[in-house]
Amino acid sequence: MSYSPMLVRLIDALTCMPGVGRKSAQRIAFQLLERDRGGAIALSAALQQAAEGIGHCCRCRMFSEHELCSICSASGRDTSLLCAVESPADVMAVEDATGYRGYYFVLMGHLSPLDGIGPEELGLNLLEDRLKDPGLVELIIATNPTVEGDATAHYLAEIAARNNIQASRIAHGVPLGGELEYVDGGTLSHAFFGRRVVD
Amino acid sequence: MSYSPMLVRLIDALTCMPGVGRKSAQRIAFQLLERDRGGAIALSAALQQAAEGIGHCCRCRMFSEHELCSICSASGRDTSLLCAVESPADVMAVEDATGYRGYYFVLMGHLSPLDGIGPEELGLNLLEDRLKDPGLVELIIATNPTVEGDATAHYLAEIAARNNIQASRIAHGVPLGGELEYVDGGTLSHAFFGRRVVD
Repeated sequence: MSYSPMLVRLIDALTCMPGVGRKSAQRIAFQLLERDRGGAIALSAALQQAAEGIGHCCRCRMFSEHELCSICSASGRDTSLLCAVESPADVMAVEDATGYRGYYFVLMGHLSPLDGIGPEELGLNLLEDRLKDPGLVELIIATNPTVEGDATAHYLAEIAARNNIQASRIAHGVPLGGELEYVDGGTLSHAFFGRRVVD
Repeated sequence: MSYSPMLVRLIDALTCMPGVGRKSAQRIAFQLLERDRGGAIALSAALQQAAEGIGHCCRCRMFSEHELCSICSASGRDTSLLCAVESPADVMAVEDATGYRGYYFVLMGHLSPLDGIGPEELGLNLLEDRLKDPGLVELIIATNPTVEGDATAHYLAEIAARNNIQASRIAHGVPLGGELEYVDGGTLSHAFFGRRVVD
């Protein structure tokens, strides 16, 4: 015994989303059918339009429906700075939290040989082209402080050195508002050995 | 600074799903665009087809794209039994776990006057018509053991009595494999006063 074919198909299709298993898919399907068919139609249209229309910016690999994303096509940004991040969400996080007004390069992942993600998948040849831009001074590496993110950061630093660009990495340590007692050992150790002279 | 218009539209549309906030919507959008555009297209088609094609069974209110759902149109089921449940998922749960082969009535919710859900929204006039079916003997009430489910059960029992149909409610108590020590007080008290003679 199972649901009607259309409902089965909808529940199956919903499980393609990360973090959505069969139970959640069922709950989502019932909710949409029972209370929000307009939302379902709008979602259907947005999905199709996005899947067919959104590509990558040809300079920074950010998701964009145009050849250049809004940051790469903006005027007045600082051409001496380039910041490499793992995901489009990281671009937004840096833009919103910092006063950074340079350019970005979105790796869309991190080096992970076991998953078949090497330098080519991260578009590192494109990044190397960017490093040859006249006026570029510094590559800010903002990959995540994970094992893969660290490996990626080392690789990027090597590419930067080869192109005579200064590489820097964002600081890792105890987060603001955090308490030493509850910070994990790795972070605390990193913060301790990365201490800076108070001036 | 925000994402490109199509991406913003997709993230907004994804939040129409229950349990999906902005962060989850963003993660889902990135995952679909980066790794599973085929899945996104399939989901888009399934959503549209379901939102436009799925209605309710005219006898039991189950989701169905036909006038009668597969259970109501099946032959050889027991016409003397009718089981009232709150949601389509409950129909599947009862079908899968029990040997029950009677018919169902799906309330699609429970009485909740504050939310504007009264007897009419639950299709209780349709249920009353079903209770007049020749051959029907028992209405099994399988609403959830919550305050609203209990109120709904009382209301259904009254309708059954008015139509001279025997009403029963599924048993509530300590779940199999549960330990008394960890069962909540309400359940234990219910199980205690609902004790049955061992024969």
